[in-house]
Amino acid sequence: MTSDFRSAAHDAVELLADYLEGLSAREVWTPMPAAAREELLTRPLPEDGTELAALVEAIGSDVLPYPMGNGHPRFFGWVNAAPAPAGILGSFAAAAVNPSSAGGDHADVHLERSVVRWLAELVGFPHPAGGGLLTSGASMATIVAVAAARNRAAAELGVNVREEGVAALPPLVGYVSAETHSCVRKAAELLGLGSRHLVTVATDAAGHLDPEALRERLRTDRAAGLTPFLVVGSAGTVNAGVVDDLAALADLCAEEKLWLHVDGAYGAFGRLDPVSASRYAGLERADSLALDPHKWLGVPVDCGCLLVRDTEQLRGTFSLVPPYLRDDAAGGLGWFSEYGIEQTRPFRSLKVWATLAAAGRSGVTADVTRCCELARELGRMVEEAPDLELLTPVETSIVAFRYAPAGADAETLHRVNVALGVAVQERGRAFVTGTVLNGQEAVRACLLNARTTEDDLRVLLEECRAAGQDLR
Amino acid sequence: MTSDFRSAAHDAVELLADYLEGLSAREVWTPMPAAAREELLTRPLPEDGTELAALVEAIGSDVLPYPMGNGHPRFFGWVNAAPAPAGILGSFAAAAVNPSSAGGDHADVHLERSVVRWLAELVGFPHPAGGGLLTSGASMATIVAVAAARNRAAAELGVNVREEGVAALPPLVGYVSAETHSCVRKAAELLGLGSRHLVTVATDAAGHLDPEALRERLRTDRAAGLTPFLVVGSAGTVNAGVVDDLAALADLCAEEKLWLHVDGAYGAFGRLDPVSASRYAGLERADSLALDPHKWLGVPVDCGCLLVRDTEQLRGTFSLVPPYLRDDAAGGLGWFSEYGIEQTRPFRSLKVWATLAAAGRSGVTADVTRCCELARELGRMVEEAPDLELLTPVETSIVAFRYAPAGADAETLHRVNVALGVAVQERGRAFVTGTVLNGQEAVRACLLNARTTEDDLRVLLEECRAAGQDLR
Ligand SMILES: Cc1ncc(COP(=O)(O)O)c(C=O)c1O
Ligand SMILES: Cc1ncc(COP(=O)(O)O)c(C=O)c1O
Repeated sequence: MTSDFRSAAHDAVELLADYLEGLSAREVWTPMPAAAREELLTRPLPEDGTELAALVEAIGSDVLPYPMGNGHPRFFGWVNAAPAPAGILGSFAAAAVNPSSAGGDHADVHLERSVVRWLAELVGFPHPAGGGLLTSGASMATIVAVAAARNRAAAELGVNVREEGVAALPPLVGYVSAETHSCVRKAAELLGLGSRHLVTVATDAAGHLDPEALRERLRTDRAAGLTPFLVVGSAGTVNAGVVDDLAALADLCAEEKLWLHVDGAYGAFGRLDPVSASRYAGLERADSLALDPHKWLGVPVDCGCLLVRDTEQLRGTFSLVPPYLRDDAAGGLGWFSEYGIEQTRPFRSLKVWATLAAAGRSGVTADVTRCCELARELGRMVEEAPDLELLTPVETSIVAFRYAPAGADAETLHRVNVALGVAVQERGRAFVTGTVLNGQEAVRACLLNARTTEDDLRVLLEECRAAGQDLR
Repeated sequence: MTSDFRSAAHDAVELLADYLEGLSAREVWTPMPAAAREELLTRPLPEDGTELAALVEAIGSDVLPYPMGNGHPRFFGWVNAAPAPAGILGSFAAAAVNPSSAGGDHADVHLERSVVRWLAELVGFPHPAGGGLLTSGASMATIVAVAAARNRAAAELGVNVREEGVAALPPLVGYVSAETHSCVRKAAELLGLGSRHLVTVATDAAGHLDPEALRERLRTDRAAGLTPFLVVGSAGTVNAGVVDDLAALADLCAEEKLWLHVDGAYGAFGRLDPVSASRYAGLERADSLALDPHKWLGVPVDCGCLLVRDTEQLRGTFSLVPPYLRDDAAGGLGWFSEYGIEQTRPFRSLKVWATLAAAGRSGVTADVTRCCELARELGRMVEEAPDLELLTPVETSIVAFRYAPAGADAETLHRVNVALGVAVQERGRAFVTGTVLNGQEAVRACLLNARTTEDDLRVLLEECRAAGQDLR
C-alpha cells in the first residue's frame, strides 16, 4: 500500500508539474464536452477498487483537461487566484498528516496561531493572542464575525441570545452599501436577523460607502427607536476593488458604539502596495476583519481568516465547553473550535505558512504591488481606448469597464455588455466575468497573478473588443 | 519556479511516504517540546523568501515529529481517521488545479455531483438530482440542514424568515437527546433559534432517543401552544456509536409533519457492516442527513456532506440569485453556492472520488465491517476483563468503557476515569479520549482504522489498566 503510494505520488508530481508548466500555452477555459460531462455525472460507484497509479492517470485524462481556468495568466474572472506552488506542497503534506486542528498540543494547532499572527502583521491589524482563526473562506469568517457582533449587542441589552434566540431582542440593524459583498446578507439571513434589517447606505459615484449618509441614517434610525449594531466597510469591493473610508467609519462606530466589520476578503492585502496603502487607514480599528488567503495570496482554496480585536467575543459566542473545563494548553487559549463554527478543522495553516515562507514579506509585497501596477496600466489602456469605458477609477487591482463604441445606443450597450463576459470566456483566450456597476452592465478584470504581462492585458482588451463587435 | 516545484514535490513525496510508513513504529502522540512550541508560536514573518526544497525540509523537521496521532493503528481518539492514501493524492491534485467549485462548467463541479450521488448510494439515501453538497464538515452540514428546516417551518407559517428574521416567528422547538452531538446546539444558537428551544428528550439505558418519550413531549408542547419543527436522530452517537430508532422517528415526523434530520457524521457508513445494517432502517426517510467522509472513509479533512430529500429547500434558503438569472448549466441545477453557505468552494470532490474509487464499494464495505468487528472484539475483551466495565453494548465501532477494579469506591472510580484518557495518551502507546456516559466518567475507543489488529486492542487495554493502576 505505502509503496504504491510512493510511486503513484511521484507520478502525480510529474502530472501536476506538467499541468502547471503547460497552463499558459493552453486556452484559458475549456468547457467539458457533453459526452465527457454525461459520463462523469452518471458514472456508477465501482464495485472494485482501482490501483493508485490508474487513479493518477484518470486525473490526467478526466479532470485536468477541463479546469476552471485560474492559474492561467489571462484568467481575470471573479476573485480566484493561481495556486502558489508552496501552497500546493503545503496542502499535500497537510493531507498526509491529516490532524484535526480543533485544539490540543500538536504542530498544526501551534502553527495556526503563528500564521494568523503573520496575516495580521501583513495587513496591519492588531493581534492579541488568540485573536483570530482560519476558516473555509470569507463567507464563513463573515458569519462568525456577525454572530459575535450580534451576541455582543444582545449582551449589552442584557439578553443571552445563545439561549433565548433572536426573538428575545429588538431588531438589530446593520449598515452596508450596495457594493457590500452578498455574503453579509447571507450571514444576516442565516443568523436570523432578517435581511430587511440590513440598511443599504448610499455610496459616492466611485462606490465608497458615504460616511455622512451613514451618520444621517443612524440619527434617523435611533430617533425611530431602532437598535443599530453593525457597520460593514469594504477594504476592496468585489465589483471594482474600491476601499471605503475606513477611518471615517471607525470614528463613527466608536462614537456610536457599533461593531465595525471590515470585509477585506479580496482587498486587504492591497495595503502592501505603496501606492494604495494610504487608502486603508483605519482598517486596524475594526472590531473584526475578514481576509482570504485563498484569494490574493494564492493559498490553495479553501482558506479564509477572521481577525478580531476582542477574542473573548468569539469565545463567548461559540464556546460550548463550560468554563471550569476549559483547556489550558497553549497559554489558556482554548480550542479553536471554541472560537468558531467548525468542530473538526483541517490543517489549513500549513499551506498558509508554506506560501508566506516561500515568498517572504518582500515577495508578497512585490506580487501585490505588481498586480496593482498591472491594474493601473489596464485602467490607462481602457481610458485611452476609444471604444472602451472605464467605469470607476482603479483603486486596487480590479478594473471595471464596458464596451462602448461611439454611436451605440443605450439599449445596444446594455445588450452587448450583458453578454460580453461569457462571450470572451467562450473565445478561450482570456477570462473575465460580468457585473453591474451603478446600474450599468460591465465586465471586470481582477488582477491577482503577478506573472500576468502587459501583453496579456492587450490580449484581454482585444478579446473584449472582438467579442463586443460580434455581439453588436 | 516550476522546475523547483517539480523537484521539491518529489522530495515531499519521499518525506511523506517515509512518514506514513514509519507511523506505526513510533509513539502514537508526541507532545511538542516547550522550546519548539515557543519557537513556532513566536517565529516572525520572514522578510525574504525560502526555497521550496528548504520548506519541505522544514516540514520534516518542525511539523511531522509532532502530529496529532491519527493514522497510527492505536489511535482511538475522538472521531479522526487515518488519511486514505488515494485521498492524499486527490488533495494534492485538487490544490494544483485549485478551482472554486462554486459553479460553472468545469470538471470539479460535475465531479462533485457525481460523488455526492456515490455517497448517497453508499448509505442508502435517495438521491434526487442536486440533492446535496460537500461541506467542510458535519457541523457545517448541520447548520445548512437546520437552516433549511427553520426556513421551511417559517414558510408554512407564512413568514419569509430570510427577510423578516427569526423574531417574526413564534419560537420553533427542536427535539434532541442528551447524546446528540453539540453541533446541533451550536447550529440552533447560530441560527438565532435559542438553545432553550431545543428540548432534550429522554433516552433508554443504552442511549437511544426514546420515541415514546418524544411523542409524549410533542403532545404536551403542542398543547402548550408551542411550534415543534425539527427532530434530530443520531446514526451513531459520538459517545458510544449508538444508532437511534430512525424508523420510529421517521414515522413520528411524518405524522407530525416535522423535519427529520439524521446525524450520520460518525456512523452513517456503518450501514455497510452486515451485522449493523438493520439498525439503520429508516435513515432513508430523513429530510436531511449529515455525513462525514473525513471520518470513517478516511477522506483527508475537511470533508463533510449534506444530503437532502427536497433540494429546493436548500435553494430557497440560500440562493441569492434572482430566479430570472439562475444559471441553467448542468441541467438547471444552479450553483452549489446557492445551496449552502460557502461562496468560494474548494475542490473537495477529487479526494472523495479518489478515496472511493481506490477502494470500490467492496473495499469500503470490507473496511467498515472490519472496524465493527474489531469494536465487537474489543467489547468482548472489556466484558471479560475483571477490572474493566463496558458501559453500553457495542452497536457500531465505538466502545465506551471504564476502569473499574474490584473494591474501588465510587469516588475513586470517578477520579481515576476522569484522568484516564489523558494518562493513556501521555504514555504514548495508545490514544483514547474521555467522555461522560449516563453520568459516568469513561473512556471511549473509536475504531476507524481497518489496519488496527487484535494485538493493538490488547495493547490499548493493557495501557488503560496500567494508567488506571497508576492513577489509583
Ligand atoms: C469582497 C468579497 N467579500 C467576500 C467574499 C466571499 O469570500 P469567500 O468566497 O471566500 O467566501 C468575496 C468573494 O469573492 C469577496 O470578493
Ligand atoms: C456524531 C457526530 N456528529 C457531528 C460531529 C461534528 O462533525 P464535524 O467535526 O465534521 O463538524 C461529530 C464529530 O465528531 C460527530 O461525531
